[in-house]
Amino acid sequence: ARPRVGYFYTGQTSGTILSEEIKKLKVKEFQSLPVVISGSASAYKAVCEMFVEDVGSLFVVDDKGLLAGVISRKDLLRTAIGSQDMNQVPVNVIMSRMPNIAYCKNNDSVLDVAVLLITKEIDAVPVVQAKDTGFEVIGRMTKTNITKAFVSLSSGESNKF
Amino acid sequence: ARPRVGYFYTGQTSGTILSEEIKKLKVKEFQSLPVVISGSASAYKAVCEMFVEDVGSLFVVDDKGLLAGVISRKDLLRTAIGSQDMNQVPVNVIMSRMPNIAYCKNNDSVLDVAVLLITKEIDAVPVVQAKDTGFEVIGRMTKTNITKAFVSLSSGESNKF
Repeated sequence: ARPRVGYFYTGQTSGTILSEEIKKLKVKEFQSLPVVISGSASAYKAVCEMFVEDVGSLFVVDDKGLLAGVISRKDLLRTAIGSQDMNQVPVNVIMSRMPNIAYCKNNDSVLDVAVLLITKEIDAVPVVQAKDTGFEVIGRMTKTNITKAFVSLSSGESNKF
Repeated sequence: ARPRVGYFYTGQTSGTILSEEIKKLKVKEFQSLPVVISGSASAYKAVCEMFVEDVGSLFVVDDKGLLAGVISRKDLLRTAIGSQDMNQVPVNVIMSRMPNIAYCKNNDSVLDVAVLLITKEIDAVPVVQAKDTGFEVIGRMTKTNITKAFVSLSSGESNKF
């Protein structure tokens, strides 16, 4: 069909246009750099690392650099008001541990990650790459990244028609 | 112009459709209930309240119930690893204080709040209603609410054409 001025052919409602534009947004375009820590580091060191790097979650890696756990500001706050000495508690005692960790790949859609964060009630997931013996952490997706993706939609940056 | 099957009149690019759909989303459709605390409560009590209510920020109100400050998980974690006793430090010593607080109205667009959260590097803002002597807190907008708004766009729930 020959397009006319003022019309454009879609065969779609505006709802599906919207939905398809959103599904085009990929993790790789919005992810942040991951901040990792060793499982043997102290909870105190983890808090300092969070403030220095200004992140709300750290990814815990084993001695091969593979994903072993995730530790959040909430985990650390729980420990901090407990009776334990933050310098004595290692991160791997209080972290969420593999395989009970949500993660994503950099080719996933931002939408899938948004649904994952909402469903699991978490603030961040590691972006991983599969290796023979586990997952290498290559990025970080948080509700901040989702918020930035939301803003980018309105600015037309993602308009690829 | 008479619409044809398979075409619809827009006079717009799909980028502007997207942008206009996003601007239609209002705070009042996505806000959560606010959790408030008194400025004289201890930091320890604030942490407990955060865990009980499962929120990352509390809004501090004065004795008239008006907005006086905001306290985040990050503020409390900073205090918790310091040398002070969490039971002795009152919330109003460590909170962010009016007028240095970002806030929104329930008729604002979700997009404006998203931009505010990104720009100010904060996780939440109170939704307020102006009173003679200050602001009453009527809701809470967080990056979680923005993430839910993002998901809702794709599901076509917000399609009002």
